[in-house]
Amino acid sequence: MQRYFIYLAYDGTNYHGWQIQPNGSSVQECLMKALSTFLRRDVEVIGAGRTDAGVHASLMVAHFDQEEVLDTVTVADKLNRLLPPDISVYRIRRVKPDAHARFDATARTYKYYVTTAKYPFNRQYRCRVYGALDYDLMNEAARTLFEYIDFTSFSKLHTDVKTNICHISHAEWTKMEGEDTTWVFTIRADRFLRNMVRAIVGTLLEVGRGKLTVEGFRKVIEQRDRCKAGTSAPGNALFLVNVEYPEEILNT
Amino acid sequence: MQRYFIYLAYDGTNYHGWQIQPNGSSVQECLMKALSTFLRRDVEVIGAGRTDAGVHASLMVAHFDQEEVLDTVTVADKLNRLLPPDISVYRIRRVKPDAHARFDATARTYKYYVTTAKYPFNRQYRCRVYGALDYDLMNEAARTLFEYIDFTSFSKLHTDVKTNICHISHAEWTKMEGEDTTWVFTIRADRFLRNMVRAIVGTLLEVGRGKLTVEGFRKVIEQRDRCKAGTSAPGNALFLVNVEYPEEILNT
Repeated sequence: MQRYFIYLAYDGTNYHGWQIQPNGSSVQECLMKALSTFLRRDVEVIGAGRTDAGVHASLMVAHFDQEEVLDTVTVADKLNRLLPPDISVYRIRRVKPDAHARFDATARTYKYYVTTAKYPFNRQYRCRVYGALDYDLMNEAARTLFEYIDFTSFSKLHTDVKTNICHISHAEWTKMEGEDTTWVFTIRADRFLRNMVRAIVGTLLEVGRGKLTVEGFRKVIEQRDRCKAGTSAPGNALFLVNVEYPEEILNT
Repeated sequence: MQRYFIYLAYDGTNYHGWQIQPNGSSVQECLMKALSTFLRRDVEVIGAGRTDAGVHASLMVAHFDQEEVLDTVTVADKLNRLLPPDISVYRIRRVKPDAHARFDATARTYKYYVTTAKYPFNRQYRCRVYGALDYDLMNEAARTLFEYIDFTSFSKLHTDVKTNICHISHAEWTKMEGEDTTWVFTIRADRFLRNMVRAIVGTLLEVGRGKLTVEGFRKVIEQRDRCKAGTSAPGNALFLVNVEYPEEILNT
């Protein structure tokens, strides 16, 4: 049995998220349908993680198995013809047979785009915020994230995960190049809880607006209570941009 | 009487172009309505040029007159509240009373975005081309544009302009930064004829596909016959990005 990693990108606007849903279309379902059509059998696809409704990915990784060795360039090309225009496969790669797209991922990176001025382009990928934001304060608060590992405060309630422990290795607001009025929040961690990035962004925006101090942000984390955090920022401005794996599981 | 230049940007997707039309909404109409509402009188607005249906502008310039001196920052702010989200004013500036947004413009620059691979984002701003393009040949053909001044071949038929003479000072395909599969054609001239950029791009794409030689491209120009040129490239991938004026007309 061979295992393959699919590297893909998608515009999540028209999907109910990555994961297959009983009601509503999902990226996973589209990908499984396209693969099943091409390979003429039911193919299961496991993703590196789930993205929420409306959230995009400029890089998502998923795996599937196939008995024989495939010509990966041809498969990628065929999949792109079968998939809708908002999902694009840009690489398929043979990996070790026990490599797992979800369990072997060592880090995920997300980007969140906030704009404080009226800008007519890319509106579907931006969160428009009214009034000025103090990005220095938001970065000061973001740096406190490195001092904690329990992020219960930023997790959706009643999820099925066993632990709320995450190790955040990067969290920073930077000005977007070529788009003066847009700022980007980049966050990297070994794992993320459901809704976590949007809850962190929503709470950091309260710091930026002066409604919460950096010390208050710290308290939100320490109280481990979702109700103390800010409201989640909208999903349309969130992108999964990278998933990392150890080299040894990739090389067959 | 004071004259003001408005610097604005718009996503042209939902408009029948810049110019007021009897049927269909236009950017000029929206801008005139917003200014008229704010200034409580009928205001006329003259643009630097017209953009076709679906064409965007990251920078368009227009002028209007007002008896008294205005607080330009406040006016820009109010206009942005009155205008729809796909039109944004980012600066208003008092200029010499006889400065003219159209007649005094010394150069206009357009950009056209072509993508040869499937890419899920920004699809509304890109022209998707199937098959590989030879960008070296397209650039060789583009450079021949500098040797000609009569562009009748690339003009819409039956327009009301007196001459088809244009001086093209820049015409080049470059790879887009941050978007590997997208190429950008940048063209700058003192003036453009109606449909000219899209006709040039459409004809250069034929060169890139190997359907027309560089010598053939030259002949298309020399024949001064619109029917000899390629079909116009779609408007959704075209952006007006700059309009230039002599400094002395801007400084009051």
